[in-house]
Amino acid sequence: MSKGVTPQSQDYAKWYTDVVQKAELADYSPVKGSMVIRPYGYALWENIKENLDRMFKETGHVNAYFPLLIPESFLKKEAEHVEGFSPELAVVTHGGGKVLEEPLVIRPTSETIIWAMYKKWINSYRDLPLLINQWANVVRWEMRTRLFLRTTEFLWQEGHTAHATESEAMEEAIKMINIYKTIAEEYMAMPVLVGRKTEREKFAGAVITYSIEAMMGDKKALQSGTSHYLGQNFAKAFDVRFQNEQNTMEYVYATSWGVSTRLVGAVVMSHGDDKGLILPPKIAPYQVVIVPIWRNDEQKSEVLSYCDKLAASLREKGIRLHLDLRDTISPGFKFNDWEMKGVPLRIEAGPKDIEKNQVVLVRRLGGKKEFLSISEFLKSVAERLDDIQKELLQRQKKLLKENTFDVASYDELKDVLEKGGFARCFWAGTGDDEERIKEETKGTVRVKLFEKTAESGICILTGKESQDQVIFAKAY
Amino acid sequence: MSKGVTPQSQDYAKWYTDVVQKAELADYSPVKGSMVIRPYGYALWENIKENLDRMFKETGHVNAYFPLLIPESFLKKEAEHVEGFSPELAVVTHGGGKVLEEPLVIRPTSETIIWAMYKKWINSYRDLPLLINQWANVVRWEMRTRLFLRTTEFLWQEGHTAHATESEAMEEAIKMINIYKTIAEEYMAMPVLVGRKTEREKFAGAVITYSIEAMMGDKKALQSGTSHYLGQNFAKAFDVRFQNEQNTMEYVYATSWGVSTRLVGAVVMSHGDDKGLILPPKIAPYQVVIVPIWRNDEQKSEVLSYCDKLAASLREKGIRLHLDLRDTISPGFKFNDWEMKGVPLRIEAGPKDIEKNQVVLVRRLGGKKEFLSISEFLKSVAERLDDIQKELLQRQKKLLKENTFDVASYDELKDVLEKGGFARCFWAGTGDDEERIKEETKGTVRVKLFEKTAESGICILTGKESQDQVIFAKAY
Repeated sequence: MSKGVTPQSQDYAKWYTDVVQKAELADYSPVKGSMVIRPYGYALWENIKENLDRMFKETGHVNAYFPLLIPESFLKKEAEHVEGFSPELAVVTHGGGKVLEEPLVIRPTSETIIWAMYKKWINSYRDLPLLINQWANVVRWEMRTRLFLRTTEFLWQEGHTAHATESEAMEEAIKMINIYKTIAEEYMAMPVLVGRKTEREKFAGAVITYSIEAMMGDKKALQSGTSHYLGQNFAKAFDVRFQNEQNTMEYVYATSWGVSTRLVGAVVMSHGDDKGLILPPKIAPYQVVIVPIWRNDEQKSEVLSYCDKLAASLREKGIRLHLDLRDTISPGFKFNDWEMKGVPLRIEAGPKDIEKNQVVLVRRLGGKKEFLSISEFLKSVAERLDDIQKELLQRQKKLLKENTFDVASYDELKDVLEKGGFARCFWAGTGDDEERIKEETKGTVRVKLFEKTAESGICILTGKESQDQVIFAKAY
Repeated sequence: MSKGVTPQSQDYAKWYTDVVQKAELADYSPVKGSMVIRPYGYALWENIKENLDRMFKETGHVNAYFPLLIPESFLKKEAEHVEGFSPELAVVTHGGGKVLEEPLVIRPTSETIIWAMYKKWINSYRDLPLLINQWANVVRWEMRTRLFLRTTEFLWQEGHTAHATESEAMEEAIKMINIYKTIAEEYMAMPVLVGRKTEREKFAGAVITYSIEAMMGDKKALQSGTSHYLGQNFAKAFDVRFQNEQNTMEYVYATSWGVSTRLVGAVVMSHGDDKGLILPPKIAPYQVVIVPIWRNDEQKSEVLSYCDKLAASLREKGIRLHLDLRDTISPGFKFNDWEMKGVPLRIEAGPKDIEKNQVVLVRRLGGKKEFLSISEFLKSVAERLDDIQKELLQRQKKLLKENTFDVASYDELKDVLEKGGFARCFWAGTGDDEERIKEETKGTVRVKLFEKTAESGICILTGKESQDQVIFAKAY
């Protein structure tokens, strides 16, 4: 356990907040509900973002940027949409010293402003598909906030696509939820369940919402990304029609999809322990940290030149590394600091190591300490990082498997939700049923699973035959 | 001249707006004062941004993210700052359906919120320097807007650094204005004059403001980036002190610096002509565009396979390219389109070219057309792009040189400002003098030049000896 960090077993929520702050991922700001993403947390986000951005571009998407401020009347054009978002809006009433004729809202999401532009840009089937993504900040007024997981302002990407056919748009929505699955599993080492939201839980304005759900260290669910098939809802709200190949006018089909800085919180809660963060090598700001050890000036120059050489060799191999040159704090303090920050591999090198042409290697995951020759280390470093990445994913898969329980009755469901974990069952209940279960258990339907254990089964509440196998869980 | 584009000679401002829209860099939005950055414009911005971001990181800076919304009271803590920005603020008065206790302003720049955090983070000399940059959107209410050049919302980066000594902070401010000079000259092919702003023109809250100023195609100046030495102004306003190595408490020294999406406008006005954009290869979204030419399906498949192979070879060389596969428009239309979009090199390939194993190469700058064997083209393409990059810079240097005039009297100054161009002279006038000259001529002092033609000279207005050689110009 690290100084100043509440143990997970004592208070998981407090542990989370402690680690996020001590690892310098983020800090509270003087602006209620808003946080500051500190450089280390932002570097983690940048690594997630760069990989996503590449995957978006590889699948034909392009980036653009739309206005932050949206006329209030735009939101009202799609009935469900305004109903869903109006309680969360921040409203600009004054600009340039004057009262505005029409108030502007800060975007809580950009469907309305984007579809107002699509009306201008889409005329013919030749203009389709339109596959646009935006990296942006959004504001949704929140009463109870939590660093990264729920804040009034957050950073995200929002994709907004327009298609000539229903099937193409449906395919796009699924393609994007699968890209989110890839970023979660292959980069963040976080296994996810993929599926469809119930009517009660879907996005305000969507026909279908798909979601990826991950299990956090406390066995609660975190919705980590959503992709929506919007049908013609926004096309109709903004009158966006196109001339099809048969020369008739048709409304456009749409999707939207997004992930946010919430993913940084997901990394913390997936892998961290009482010593702090444990970062997957593929997205860690630093994959290796080198802590030089010296007692006097003579040693110092010798050790630093040894470490510099090592650093250069690692950089050549494309390893992201940090050489900790701080000279006002002790090596022991540095060890704790980098453990808190979750760097996958730590190298220690002092005069004795130079004599033996070796390094001391400490693995953050598991804490194993080894003495290795320089050449042995350089030869194996990439593989070691790879192994850590795989081990983290395996560990989380095991956690998910061991804490997912098939339940056959409402009583069994209640038991699982009480002791913690995901309850899997067939479901044919209504939105009102979901509401009541939420009140009684705090659990919600996370997703109707894509990957089912059986084609159909009996709903635990209604006793009806159903093809929807779902996950119930308490969620963030 | 291209269809629908006003010639520069007829109306330069109209030409600019036409090209920005026809090249699909940006579009007007239904939100007054805000624009939409379209994918092609955003890709150009991304290329500028990535190069800047790399240079920031190479010089020890890290990225972070601070809140969009700032309590109104924060801005009031620095007297000049609030005076400068209060006429331009957008104010949020309602959040989550309620009237806010204290209104929040949308950041016009982030000094105040960042220094409120620096107060938390800086205690000792060990915490310094703090070298943080932020990529963000900001809002400054504007009455008269122009795409990219002046909009209510724009994208930018803002660096905010904290230092233990005055000299270190002064050095930082100069280092960053020089990085802006590098991005302008080496990437955007846009020569700039570097210097210091007069008291009248400096940033609200700065001790010293440095600026880079470029000459646009109409011989007006565009302020393209600024870097401020803030002294202890914000440290005092937010009470940010640190314990120095002698154990006494001292206020921190600061800088801030920024460039914005205005740079996209600068690229347009630096190089464009009546046919549209001309993009410097280093930042062009596509450096080469391939237009396949065919008359029937048999030719089509042959031509496309020829072009695919060529595209693969170019990609291997790291060339950014686009293969234009649209089959509902003619090659001629495509030629115009890519000329409008300023792609440096265009390849045409049809059945005749395949027979001869050649391509037709058309250079956007100058319009030269050549027939080249595939191998000859592949061997020379990188060098050709390099040559275009250099030629663009040389052309702009020539423009700048030929339109910068040394003036010895106020009458001469007026002549230059009237006919167009930069007037260079020594200056010892006051802010009131500058104000009066602006009223009479619309010209302002752009910078006190770093690179002077003489150590000192006689002020054209006051007749006093002065060491400040300045540039007067009309500016955007």
